[in-house]
Amino acid sequence: MAAEPPYLELLESVDSFPHIDISKTPYIEDESSSFYQLLLPNDARCHGYIHPSVVHKLAWTASFQVSHSIPRTVQLLDDSDGKDTAAACSRAFYEVIEKAVDSKIYPFLKTMQWENYRIVGAKYPTVQLLRSAARLFGICSRGAHMTAYVRTNDGIKIWVGRRAAHLFTYPGKLDTTVAGGVRAEESPFECIVHEAAEEASIPADFVRANAKACGAITYVAKSSTAYGDDSSLMTPVILYNYDIELPEHIVPRPQDDEVEDFYLWDLEQVKQAMVNRAFKTNCAAVMMDFFIRHGIITDENEKDYLEILTRLHRKLPVPTSPSEA
Amino acid sequence: MAAEPPYLELLESVDSFPHIDISKTPYIEDESSSFYQLLLPNDARCHGYIHPSVVHKLAWTASFQVSHSIPRTVQLLDDSDGKDTAAACSRAFYEVIEKAVDSKIYPFLKTMQWENYRIVGAKYPTVQLLRSAARLFGICSRGAHMTAYVRTNDGIKIWVGRRAAHLFTYPGKLDTTVAGGVRAEESPFECIVHEAAEEASIPADFVRANAKACGAITYVAKSSTAYGDDSSLMTPVILYNYDIELPEHIVPRPQDDEVEDFYLWDLEQVKQAMVNRAFKTNCAAVMMDFFIRHGIITDENEKDYLEILTRLHRKLPVPTSPSEA
Repeated sequence: MAAEPPYLELLESVDSFPHIDISKTPYIEDESSSFYQLLLPNDARCHGYIHPSVVHKLAWTASFQVSHSIPRTVQLLDDSDGKDTAAACSRAFYEVIEKAVDSKIYPFLKTMQWENYRIVGAKYPTVQLLRSAARLFGICSRGAHMTAYVRTNDGIKIWVGRRAAHLFTYPGKLDTTVAGGVRAEESPFECIVHEAAEEASIPADFVRANAKACGAITYVAKSSTAYGDDSSLMTPVILYNYDIELPEHIVPRPQDDEVEDFYLWDLEQVKQAMVNRAFKTNCAAVMMDFFIRHGIITDENEKDYLEILTRLHRKLPVPTSPSEA
Repeated sequence: MAAEPPYLELLESVDSFPHIDISKTPYIEDESSSFYQLLLPNDARCHGYIHPSVVHKLAWTASFQVSHSIPRTVQLLDDSDGKDTAAACSRAFYEVIEKAVDSKIYPFLKTMQWENYRIVGAKYPTVQLLRSAARLFGICSRGAHMTAYVRTNDGIKIWVGRRAAHLFTYPGKLDTTVAGGVRAEESPFECIVHEAAEEASIPADFVRANAKACGAITYVAKSSTAYGDDSSLMTPVILYNYDIELPEHIVPRPQDDEVEDFYLWDLEQVKQAMVNRAFKTNCAAVMMDFFIRHGIITDENEKDYLEILTRLHRKLPVPTSPSEA
C-alpha cells in the first residue's frame, strides 16, 4: 500500500501566497514591495493587486492613472464617451499588453495561448484581457477541471492524463482527465465540454448529459520565476470542478498535442503519484477535493482535514460577483 | 416552479459573526467589547474567544489566570502535577461550569443536553467540556449531518425531517435527515451512525456500509439572545457532511422524540421551503453544500456561487489540528 500523500504540504505549494489580508496590509516587507490596487471605472472595489515591479515595467497609456501614494492604485479611466465602457476597458488593456509583447519584457506573454480571460466580479462582465497577462494585473484566473472515474469490482479508478513533453508549463507532469482555462466568453461548463472533446476525445453529447458540477476550489498562488517573472506576483485562482463517471466503453484518448497518454489508475496508484509529486501542482489540489467529496480523505484518516478543506476554498482577495458593485 | 432561494442571504444568517480577523482586531467596537483569548497549558495558540460579559459573569477558579490587559487572556493552568494534563483541564472547566449551572446565570446551561464537546485542535485532544457551555468559551462546536436522498424517475428526492414542537431550539423547523452534535469521545462518522438509528430508524449496518463522507462546512455564528445571552458570543462551527442514497424500502421513521415527521421531497419542494425560511438555519447551509456538490447550484445559475462556496468553508479563528501545536 502506498504511503498517504502529504496533502497539506502539496496544497501549500499551490496556495502559496501568504495568508495576509492584502487589502489591509499595504506593505509586504517594505514600501518597495507594496502592491498597487487595480481599479476599474465606476467601481470602488479592487479587482487585482499589481506588483510594483510590474507597474514600473509596463508602459501605461493615458487610459490608466497610476498613483504612487498609499494606497497605491492603478485606476482605469472610462474612455468610452458614455458608450461601451466594457469595450473601452478591454481596448485599454490590449494596448498596454501589446506594447509589453512587442518589447519582449515578459517572455511568457509570447509563448502562452492567445485567449482572453474575463475579470471575474467586474461590474462590466465583458471586460477582458489576454490570458497570459492576467497574472501581471493580479486578477483572478478561471480554470475548469473534470475528473473521469470508473466504478470497478476493485473499487473506484480514475483516469489520469500525462502532459506532453513539449509543453511550456509542467511538461510530462500528470494532469486531471480534462482541464483548461475558461475563456472570457464561455461558462466553465462550456469550457469542459469542448476541452473534453479536444483533449480526451470524450464526445460532447456524453459530457453534456453526464458531467456533474460539484463545486470549485479557490487559492492564491505566488507565481514562480520559472515563468520569467523577476518578482512574486499574486494570482487568485478559481478552478471549477466536474466529475464524470465513464462506462467501460468510453476511453479517453489523446486528441490534440497537449496530452501524451491517459492511465486508468486505482487509488493506490494515484496516491503514490501524489507522494512522488508527479502531478501538476494544482491538479493535486483538484484531486484532494475529489478525495474529500468521495469519502477517500476523511476527518478520521487525515489530521489536517479541516485545514485542507478550508484552504481549498480560500476567500479570494478580489470580488467574485458583480452584485456587490 | 418555486423561486430560487436567496442562498447568500440564508447563509448570512448562519455565518453571522463579522468577517474580521479577530486575532488581530482586539476591539470590536470599543475596549469594553474586546474578546478574551482562551489559552490552554503548554500551547501558545488561542482555542476560543470569550466575550467580556462572560468573563465577568463566570466564577473563575484558581485554575484560570485572567488577564485584563491587552491582549486579554484567560489562561488555563496545568494543575496536573505532571500527571494527566488533559484530565486536569477538563476538571477545571467542569468546576467553573458547575458553578454557573448552580447559580442559574445562563438558562441554556440547564436545558440543553448533558454531553461533552472536545476542544478541536487542542494539543491534548481529550480535553472536554459541557456541550451547552462551548459557546461561552468561544470554542469550536462539532456537528455531523447526513442527507438521505432517493433517485427516482422524476429526479432526485431528499428526505427532510421536521423537528418536534417541544424542542428548546428551532421547534417545528425543517432539519437535515440525520444530525447531531459530535460528542467528545466519538468521531463524526460514529455520531452519524448512532444518530441515524436513534433519530430516523435507519439501521446502523446500512449506514456504516453506505454513508459517504463528503466534506464539511465551517462558519462562525453570533449567538442569538434567544438562548438567554445578553451579548454577542462568537461560536466557530464545523458540520461534517455525509450523503446516503436510500433504496425505496428504507424509509426514515421518527424513533426518539426529537423528530416529528419525515418528508420525501423533490428539489422544488426543498427550494420552496428554503424560500419560506422553514429550515433550521444551519440545515439550510448544509443543503446548499449538498446542492453545490450535486450540480444543483452552479456558477451558471447562481451569481453568488463563489461567495457562497468559499463562505461555506470559512477559515476558522481557532486551530483545527493538533499538529500545529
